[in-house]
Amino acid sequence: MSLGGGLPRAYPGAMSLTADTPVGTDARAAAPGVPPEVDVAEAVLDVCRAARAASKALATATRATKDAALLAVADALVAQAPRVVAANGRDLERGAAEGLPANLLDRLRLDADRLGAIADAVRDVAALPDPVGEVVRGQTLPNGLRLRQLRVPMGVVAVVYEARPNVTVDAAALALKSGNAVVLRGGSAARETNALVVEVVREALAAAGLPADLVSTVDAYGREGVRALMRARGLVDVLVPRGGAGLIAEVVRSSTVPVIETGTGNCHVYVDAAADLDVALAVALNSKTQRTSTCNTAETVLVHAAVADAFLPSLLTAMSAAGVRLHGDDAVRAAAEPLDGVDVEPATDEDWATEYLALELAVGVVPDLDAALAHVDRWSTGHTEAVVTRDLAVAERFAAEVDSAAVMVNASTRFTDGAQMGLGAEIGISTQKLHARGPMGLAELTTTRWVVTGDGHVRG
Amino acid sequence: MSLGGGLPRAYPGAMSLTADTPVGTDARAAAPGVPPEVDVAEAVLDVCRAARAASKALATATRATKDAALLAVADALVAQAPRVVAANGRDLERGAAEGLPANLLDRLRLDADRLGAIADAVRDVAALPDPVGEVVRGQTLPNGLRLRQLRVPMGVVAVVYEARPNVTVDAAALALKSGNAVVLRGGSAARETNALVVEVVREALAAAGLPADLVSTVDAYGREGVRALMRARGLVDVLVPRGGAGLIAEVVRSSTVPVIETGTGNCHVYVDAAADLDVALAVALNSKTQRTSTCNTAETVLVHAAVADAFLPSLLTAMSAAGVRLHGDDAVRAAAEPLDGVDVEPATDEDWATEYLALELAVGVVPDLDAALAHVDRWSTGHTEAVVTRDLAVAERFAAEVDSAAVMVNASTRFTDGAQMGLGAEIGISTQKLHARGPMGLAELTTTRWVVTGDGHVRG
Repeated sequence: MSLGGGLPRAYPGAMSLTADTPVGTDARAAAPGVPPEVDVAEAVLDVCRAARAASKALATATRATKDAALLAVADALVAQAPRVVAANGRDLERGAAEGLPANLLDRLRLDADRLGAIADAVRDVAALPDPVGEVVRGQTLPNGLRLRQLRVPMGVVAVVYEARPNVTVDAAALALKSGNAVVLRGGSAARETNALVVEVVREALAAAGLPADLVSTVDAYGREGVRALMRARGLVDVLVPRGGAGLIAEVVRSSTVPVIETGTGNCHVYVDAAADLDVALAVALNSKTQRTSTCNTAETVLVHAAVADAFLPSLLTAMSAAGVRLHGDDAVRAAAEPLDGVDVEPATDEDWATEYLALELAVGVVPDLDAALAHVDRWSTGHTEAVVTRDLAVAERFAAEVDSAAVMVNASTRFTDGAQMGLGAEIGISTQKLHARGPMGLAELTTTRWVVTGDGHVRG
Repeated sequence: MSLGGGLPRAYPGAMSLTADTPVGTDARAAAPGVPPEVDVAEAVLDVCRAARAASKALATATRATKDAALLAVADALVAQAPRVVAANGRDLERGAAEGLPANLLDRLRLDADRLGAIADAVRDVAALPDPVGEVVRGQTLPNGLRLRQLRVPMGVVAVVYEARPNVTVDAAALALKSGNAVVLRGGSAARETNALVVEVVREALAAAGLPADLVSTVDAYGREGVRALMRARGLVDVLVPRGGAGLIAEVVRSSTVPVIETGTGNCHVYVDAAADLDVALAVALNSKTQRTSTCNTAETVLVHAAVADAFLPSLLTAMSAAGVRLHGDDAVRAAAEPLDGVDVEPATDEDWATEYLALELAVGVVPDLDAALAHVDRWSTGHTEAVVTRDLAVAERFAAEVDSAAVMVNASTRFTDGAQMGLGAEIGISTQKLHARGPMGLAELTTTRWVVTGDGHVRG
């Protein structure tokens, strides 16, 4: 399934919530339609209250009810394709007029085919097992008390995102399947598309006998609305920001609602002295070039000095042939010197720190595993790191000491993905340690409740 | 084991971090010893950096190493009892001079017996299974990739607390056992005790061959130090506030570090129409009076109208006899009228909202289960609610629809406790939904890492 196959990235230059356009600056700028007499904060809290009330109906709904609603949503999206495509056309027109780059316009674009794929993804979510009601742990205590820890919905999930309109549907489907209401705040570049998609989803829910308020949007309230959403503690149970580093940092800074950070991936591939160099080349190339815009793409390759001479020429030549712009330390640049048509710029600290999300790579030579681990510890964002080695002790130490959500041993960094890992669709990839780490699927949108049954048990 | 048997409460009136003395107001007030030229924020970050470095040594330590260190800590606390008791005596003297109430002085007091019990609790933690290294999930994918989700330490845990000095040791023991470093900020009333206890623990760790920086305190840096700790994102992985509602609210508001809320418990007992009234009386009495200062103590009893006449006289008489001050709605007050020596004040919204933590109780009559659920939904803090009923459908609905960390069916609210639930010692009881809900034991102080092993796997 395609949800989250690659996390959507920020649209640099779009009218979205990034580090360049901080929340709270010119708060109503993105909500020109809100009359000044409207209390935006209160209006957003009303949306959250309605979502909370609706969530109670869904919390105890059966899987059959939820799946039927999801299938109705999928059908409605297909049935309303012409209207959605038309609304999307207006977003595209405005984007073009405002100078949105061609690649971003392409991401924004919805046609009947893409909408069909989005509807199929909703059907895939319907086909996933329901996480709600799972007995996570349970036992009978010596005093006869019966304990069950049950998986239950969070309640209200908020998603703030910048990217492609498919996130609107993906987030709604995952929230509904896990028994939650969702409050959405999408990128302003897609605002007409998102508004109509939310309307279509709400109508489908109501027709299926569920409250429309299970899915709502605060797009109409601009940046001031996002601020209110981030402060809706007690009404919103978790906020998931999806987008660029600027958005995520701002949400983390400003939220009193619990946040799960997703998606920044400065991922490393370490080629050990004991690496199979053919495997190393394949893993490095795939990690870098298979899809550059995703958070699980490698941004740095570190090579053990013992294999640098044997490996760097083929690595640099292959990366160069794949169109990858290269940055290297002195050893790497020296190795590139004799290679025809391979150009390696000097790597700076900024290169080691950068998540390029493009055909661009930093390459370094390290004297040993310790140095590789120290480099990763300093520069990684804690997403995914890969080691290529035939040495069991090296693999074990790398896996034990790298402090990231995922470690790949002789495999591409691109496998850190809910669908690839057999976990089903994901709402994002968590790079924090609390609650969810790595791909966040349905179970990560739930919490638990202890139910303890006695026969009049009291404490002595 | 006694850790967290009842959460410590705030010392109202103590020189601690409460709603009355917000963080950031008169920031150096509690750190009179810090010279003005010291950059407190940087000093606290240095403490966190040292903790982080030390945590790496512990992350891969075996259980045997960790348990040996814990036993050494327990022995050192006993060996140093005279010094600790002397330091505690100075805290008690200062507290008495500053007018600390007698019950708070009692909580602050450490004697050789109490220190022995604290050391025993550390030995109990050593005897618990090690959560680190557990394979939480795992499978081999169709393409041959081998997946394991491993339980690993968080890294650095921070605990901000107001209460009894035993929390210093409890928190350190739980953090160490789960492979984490801990940075502590204790209540200023216990500052000499805490400073010496931390010193004793650090010396014991060093003697056991582990870094002393696994356990440190920022008490010396006053409230400005707490602020820095709450902002040490990237260095501190999770912050657990333990104490009163004011402390917790302030931490939630000011932290950029992920926080787990603990401990506010406005717990309810609902006596259903189908209740066994003897069971109801026993459960209500135990929930209210067994230990009033704990977060799992009941603060409101709701009685179904159908059994109000039969139940209220015995409930009100028994509570009154137990010294419980009563607040009731009109129906409850009418029922109390003919009872000898039973006085019921009118219950206000403030009563329904209050976590008394004392021999004080609000009592209401509800027309049906729906009204009981609505009352709980409005006033509960999401900690623990109990239902007393013989009706399976009522029990199931109460358990399904109450949105709290724990639901007790025919059992006292006082069972929401790590030790009582057979989960081992706890660092607090989470009332939030993210990461941990209910008693937080060793597993809740860990995160997970995906380790994916291939044979040169790449994505197509």
